[in-house]
Amino acid sequence: MKKNNSYKKSKNLRIIPIGGCEEVGRNMTIFEYGKDIIILDMGIQFPEENMPGINYVIPNIKYLKGKEKNIRAVIFSHGHLDHIGAAPILLEKLGNPLIVGRPLTMELIKHRQEDYIHGSSKRLKTLYIKTLKDNIKLGVFDVSFFQVDHAIIDAVGLILKTPSVTVIHPGDWTMEHDPIGRKKLRYDYLAKLRRPTILMLESLGSMNSTEPITEKQMVDNLQKLINGAPGRIIIATFSSQLERIKQILEHACKINKKVALDGYSMKNNVEIAKKLGYIKAYKKTMIPINKASDYSDNKVIIICTGAQGEENAVLPRIVRGDHRFVKIRKKDTIVFSSSVIPGNERTIQRLKDGLYRLSDHIVHSEIMDVHTSGHSNIQNIKTIINQIKPNYFIPVYANHSFLKEAAKIAYGLGISKSKIIVPDNGSVIIASQKEVKMINEKVPANYVFVDGLGIGDVGEIVLKDRQNLAKDGMFVIAVVINGKTGKVVGSPDIISRGFVYMRESKELLGETRKKVIKIVNGAVRNGAGANSPRPNFAYIKNEIRDKISNFLYSKTERMPMVLPVVIEV
Amino acid sequence: MKKNNSYKKSKNLRIIPIGGCEEVGRNMTIFEYGKDIIILDMGIQFPEENMPGINYVIPNIKYLKGKEKNIRAVIFSHGHLDHIGAAPILLEKLGNPLIVGRPLTMELIKHRQEDYIHGSSKRLKTLYIKTLKDNIKLGVFDVSFFQVDHAIIDAVGLILKTPSVTVIHPGDWTMEHDPIGRKKLRYDYLAKLRRPTILMLESLGSMNSTEPITEKQMVDNLQKLINGAPGRIIIATFSSQLERIKQILEHACKINKKVALDGYSMKNNVEIAKKLGYIKAYKKTMIPINKASDYSDNKVIIICTGAQGEENAVLPRIVRGDHRFVKIRKKDTIVFSSSVIPGNERTIQRLKDGLYRLSDHIVHSEIMDVHTSGHSNIQNIKTIINQIKPNYFIPVYANHSFLKEAAKIAYGLGISKSKIIVPDNGSVIIASQKEVKMINEKVPANYVFVDGLGIGDVGEIVLKDRQNLAKDGMFVIAVVINGKTGKVVGSPDIISRGFVYMRESKELLGETRKKVIKIVNGAVRNGAGANSPRPNFAYIKNEIRDKISNFLYSKTERMPMVLPVVIEV
Repeated sequence: MKKNNSYKKSKNLRIIPIGGCEEVGRNMTIFEYGKDIIILDMGIQFPEENMPGINYVIPNIKYLKGKEKNIRAVIFSHGHLDHIGAAPILLEKLGNPLIVGRPLTMELIKHRQEDYIHGSSKRLKTLYIKTLKDNIKLGVFDVSFFQVDHAIIDAVGLILKTPSVTVIHPGDWTMEHDPIGRKKLRYDYLAKLRRPTILMLESLGSMNSTEPITEKQMVDNLQKLINGAPGRIIIATFSSQLERIKQILEHACKINKKVALDGYSMKNNVEIAKKLGYIKAYKKTMIPINKASDYSDNKVIIICTGAQGEENAVLPRIVRGDHRFVKIRKKDTIVFSSSVIPGNERTIQRLKDGLYRLSDHIVHSEIMDVHTSGHSNIQNIKTIINQIKPNYFIPVYANHSFLKEAAKIAYGLGISKSKIIVPDNGSVIIASQKEVKMINEKVPANYVFVDGLGIGDVGEIVLKDRQNLAKDGMFVIAVVINGKTGKVVGSPDIISRGFVYMRESKELLGETRKKVIKIVNGAVRNGAGANSPRPNFAYIKNEIRDKISNFLYSKTERMPMVLPVVIEV
Repeated sequence: MKKNNSYKKSKNLRIIPIGGCEEVGRNMTIFEYGKDIIILDMGIQFPEENMPGINYVIPNIKYLKGKEKNIRAVIFSHGHLDHIGAAPILLEKLGNPLIVGRPLTMELIKHRQEDYIHGSSKRLKTLYIKTLKDNIKLGVFDVSFFQVDHAIIDAVGLILKTPSVTVIHPGDWTMEHDPIGRKKLRYDYLAKLRRPTILMLESLGSMNSTEPITEKQMVDNLQKLINGAPGRIIIATFSSQLERIKQILEHACKINKKVALDGYSMKNNVEIAKKLGYIKAYKKTMIPINKASDYSDNKVIIICTGAQGEENAVLPRIVRGDHRFVKIRKKDTIVFSSSVIPGNERTIQRLKDGLYRLSDHIVHSEIMDVHTSGHSNIQNIKTIINQIKPNYFIPVYANHSFLKEAAKIAYGLGISKSKIIVPDNGSVIIASQKEVKMINEKVPANYVFVDGLGIGDVGEIVLKDRQNLAKDGMFVIAVVINGKTGKVVGSPDIISRGFVYMRESKELLGETRKKVIKIVNGAVRNGAGANSPRPNFAYIKNEIRDKISNFLYSKTERMPMVLPVVIEV
């Protein structure tokens, strides 16, 4: 007979959101039922302003250590980096489990894997969801998918049937009210799934009460701009906005304008979309960027990356004058067909300021609706809850504030408080047929930083040092001491960066050198004591650090990191 | 007879916006007519994310060097820090000229001066504008004022009459459509001033097409929240929002609730407002923060600082649990009666996330209108231009993008392009009766950083070093070399911060030490040459820096700042 504990475990689904429930990004959710594990998404989070030097943050997989063999699959809801970005690192660490997703998502993962280690994508074990009718059995899990509206092709929602509960998770989603070329999506049929059902809902829209424009209005606006542009039109958007790129290509083809794409990721993504048949070849419409000047300006459309102000992306390079083929002209129209990712506000403002100096036609959301968001609003959240009628509601994939507001919306629609769960990263939710509840236990879910080749080796100490170094710089004092006499040999060396402008601070440095010699002489006497003739080096270092820190602060009101090097000869 | 050049100069007004025309903040404008200079505002700008360690940025006053005796007065439009913050530093540097402003503005300047150097406010030469009918003659300038709506009491616009042109400058402004207790402001009378007139217009609203709620609606919302609060109500707002604090006090007094203020600057500002008679004593309503717990929770209103997430302000301290007298309870209502200052988005989001964990009632602009902005919108800009009917239009006090959009608005209203001038910081505008134009010359207007006691001593080099230190940290290598043999003495010392976690990198450090010895031995042979027996220390240092940088990058893909210290014994 099994132990009671593991018996209980095996009858329940454990839902563990590892990332995405406190900040946006590094989305990953673990579903565990007995000895079967399914993972949804492996995203990265971009560093906050207090994480200097960090490339990105990935989900913490400590909980999965020793359970690698239980992982039946990793399912990806769509191909944005906050859902697939950590795949190359984590899949390898987890023993290369099966990965499952729609074709574009899978190709984007493969591409990222190749960028990470050339030739490594061949090792991936893949299962492509060719049609949304596909139904997969993965251990105890019965997995199927449903279409959602989102800012990338092939975004899907997940239906996870288990012996205890059914989980419905749309991934990232919105509700397009006037989609082009197809019907508006409805989710009523999900209300018919085997109950109890749990709706895990991405809730970024829980504070957004504005009614967005429709895809059609947005495309109309873009087309009008393209038609009326007096010169070239340069459209900056996300490299994953393949639907929009397709719409622009279609229109350009119709009115006989040429389209040049620029930006590494954008060109790659379009190539992938072409290979999959999602975007036609447009051999007569598409031109390479270096041929753009062969056509008269009002025939040229450039679609490029850099709308977030990313230093090395195309638009910022154009504005700086660093682009080989494109310089902005007064008559160019530049369109930001994009939203502002939080944290990029000031960078984007600087980019816009630069553009306003170069061109008279800058268009962005504050001027005209040239972008639709991939995320929902309050009304959408109400609609999807009313259509799906879940037994339990778990808001996810947004900052805690947004989850709490989504919980209020669900409560307002009649779901009782006991059936609404607001998790943190690392929370453990136990779902049986009888009840769904969050337990007190938490699994490790703290930041794992990626910095260069290092994964998880940069921690709080290193970050704190970087922050301090950034604030007032550093101040190294190298002193050579004669081990026998305890006397300072020569003059102390000072190396400082980020503190003061050294050439203009000769007086301060001279004073500091004198002070160091005095401190060392004092410290040699005090530290060594009468019966120990050898200088106490640790004591001398501490004395230098403390006293010179105070001295520099009294002179400058700055606190550089003072680092003494004491060398005995 | 005077030289032609200076003669021409003396017949024209020179307008020089020193700050505030490229970024928001450090607002300052110079008006120069012959030997008379008037300065408007001396603001500070808060540092951007690429200015680590900087306290703030002040206007550059190089142009005024040698002209100190010509300064007739410094006029302050209102008491916000981006208009008065640099006064203590700059007034001293400019030989303490006369300062002019409305009472609250002047008292706030005095207070800031005292904070800077205790006792120094006595030295200020002040002229209080007691009533808006006051008319002052300052050299050739005829100065008067007009009332504007803005987020601080005593905000005024400036009318500057000169022999050549009349300048109208509202400072920061908005148009309140339903002001409490007075009539809506109109500016038609300014159309009657002696022409040509130049309207210099703060243009932060030039991209804002939304209709703001009225002051009355906002106050109504706040009152409803206060009336219905199940527990305490904590309202975080700007410390300069004295009008709002007054409105809350009035309402609290009426419904017999108590108000506790907290926050150094807020308490000071309210004291000043009381002294000036702008806020009544409210002896029965106001209580000290440490007495708040003496009353039942639903009788207590706390008004405090920290809505921008400033680390040491009250609300963040409360959320962190660092406040001596206030801990958030589930039933507390917390209101952000404030806007988000660009750059603070993520900090405020983190603060809100913290609050949502502690209380069930968080109210901010996304939930309810509990704040009105002090800045205009597109419609307001159209209205003020139509009412004042200026001959020339100069948009100022906003980022370049906003100035350009304001210029478009003016053009749309019929002002010809030649009469619209979009200046940069440091631009020189020459205004004669015949024409107003911007000349090619620019005066110094670049950043002046304040960091600790240093004013202007931190420049691009120091900032660049700080940025680099923040990114991958630093790596100091101290090597002792025997000057005669050229051999390394002992083992090289390594001190590193912000690069890797040192305790877990012993292998890397060991390898590095070996490599350093090898590099030095090689460098001693190569650098010294056959006929110079002494080691070439500069060459050895360069070799260590370059080769160890490459070595560390190859191992970690990080680029710490490598700093060799080579000591000869």
